[in-house]
Amino acid sequence: MNKEDYFIQQFTNQTKLIGDDAAVVGNMVYSQDAFFENVHFKREWMSLKQIASKAMLVNISDAIAMNAKPLYALLTVAIPKDFSTSDLRKLANGFKKVANDYGIKIIGGDTISNEKLDISITIISQTSNPKYRADAKIGDLVCYTGTLGSCKKDLKKLLKGKKVPSKAKFIKPKLKGDFFYDISKYVNASLDISDGLFFELQRVSKASKVGFEFFDEISPEVGTSGEEYEMLFTFPKKHLEKVMLSAKNHKVPLNIFAKVIKGSYKTTAKNHHF
Amino acid sequence: MNKEDYFIQQFTNQTKLIGDDAAVVGNMVYSQDAFFENVHFKREWMSLKQIASKAMLVNISDAIAMNAKPLYALLTVAIPKDFSTSDLRKLANGFKKVANDYGIKIIGGDTISNEKLDISITIISQTSNPKYRADAKIGDLVCYTGTLGSCKKDLKKLLKGKKVPSKAKFIKPKLKGDFFYDISKYVNASLDISDGLFFELQRVSKASKVGFEFFDEISPEVGTSGEEYEMLFTFPKKHLEKVMLSAKNHKVPLNIFAKVIKGSYKTTAKNHHF
Repeated sequence: MNKEDYFIQQFTNQTKLIGDDAAVVGNMVYSQDAFFENVHFKREWMSLKQIASKAMLVNISDAIAMNAKPLYALLTVAIPKDFSTSDLRKLANGFKKVANDYGIKIIGGDTISNEKLDISITIISQTSNPKYRADAKIGDLVCYTGTLGSCKKDLKKLLKGKKVPSKAKFIKPKLKGDFFYDISKYVNASLDISDGLFFELQRVSKASKVGFEFFDEISPEVGTSGEEYEMLFTFPKKHLEKVMLSAKNHKVPLNIFAKVIKGSYKTTAKNHHF
Repeated sequence: MNKEDYFIQQFTNQTKLIGDDAAVVGNMVYSQDAFFENVHFKREWMSLKQIASKAMLVNISDAIAMNAKPLYALLTVAIPKDFSTSDLRKLANGFKKVANDYGIKIIGGDTISNEKLDISITIISQTSNPKYRADAKIGDLVCYTGTLGSCKKDLKKLLKGKKVPSKAKFIKPKLKGDFFYDISKYVNASLDISDGLFFELQRVSKASKVGFEFFDEISPEVGTSGEEYEMLFTFPKKHLEKVMLSAKNHKVPLNIFAKVIKGSYKTTAKNHHF
């Protein structure tokens, strides 16, 4: 067990709310994610606006994965001492643009002076029908949205000092909220793919106590690509047509790649996240 | 204007919710504060349990200042790579102890591996009668709880490499929640003293568009001592007896030091916070 998981385990006896992408209390959903320089990104990889934008989007992705609509955000931003007012405006504009796109109000937070740019965001969302990792049922179909693999490739490029296009998903995640909200009534279990498909499947297996029968082999390039922020979900076979029709209407590629079976699933792949 | 204030200003056109110790939405109150190594504390000053405990308490202080009861916490903890499992347990115990003392459920958050110990906490609270900085009224009495000054002295000692006792307020803030909740019905404006009395008074002046008539001179040692986490509040004179009686019952020293008048108040003192 790594240190992060060990630390989290210290709290899981206290509450059953920990362990999904966000915590559900009544019809409110709370998620908090860090987006730290040299942990989640390097500054030379992206513009300040892109950094702020991605920090917001990865947090919004958690809300979508719980089938919740984000309403409010709290931003804690640790600002490097050498930032100019122009830098600060660019950063603020990144936050505001995404907040505006998603109808989110930025209601507070904290700013401090720090060595590096470390962002921590809380998203407050609302749902009438929360979705969890633990609700996959035997016989469910398992699918993910979009295509997987580009983020791992782009991360490799960036780590080698190469550039990637600004429209790349690694720079700007392409969330599938509209589609997912539309089909959520058919969904049993869901989460977003932040640490790679294989890793997320292991989470579903552990939470739902199920295994998977794969229809085709999934290559490591696809299965271990992290920071994709695509949706991974399971649904009863009887809803297949409705789910596929909605995917078509929303122009969301859908990859139905496995069936939920009795058993368990473990991956030997490493948690692939910069 | 410093960079942190400039950054915050980029968001204040968006919403009027920013600017108090916490944001109020309906009867829910949301606050998020950073507690970063080498920004808010040095690791040699305090045990890991004390660090976690203070991180929680300074956030709870914001909730109390809004007259809100903390219910839930989200913890984002950036963990240094060299931490042992024993270190992680000590840290977790600090969070859990305070959460337990205040009846707070830790419902989620994020953990990452980082160079230093950087904590960001969101506290979700509930109130039926939120208190703001902007509601000081002409004629109100102005007071603070406890005694001010020790935190600045202790910070100086620590910066010189000396030790301070573990029961010092700088190590463990002594929140006055029970007293403040009790008298909150009489209070007009309130906030906690995190950046020094003079600085907080300037905030009240700006938000409420008022000045202060001081009954006695306040020494810089008292007025510029930050991280005190005492309550600063104003209330109509007619409630004086009830407020003083409650202070006595709760064994809270109360210092009524000024009256709210027309005008404005500015301090030349620096924001005194490590």
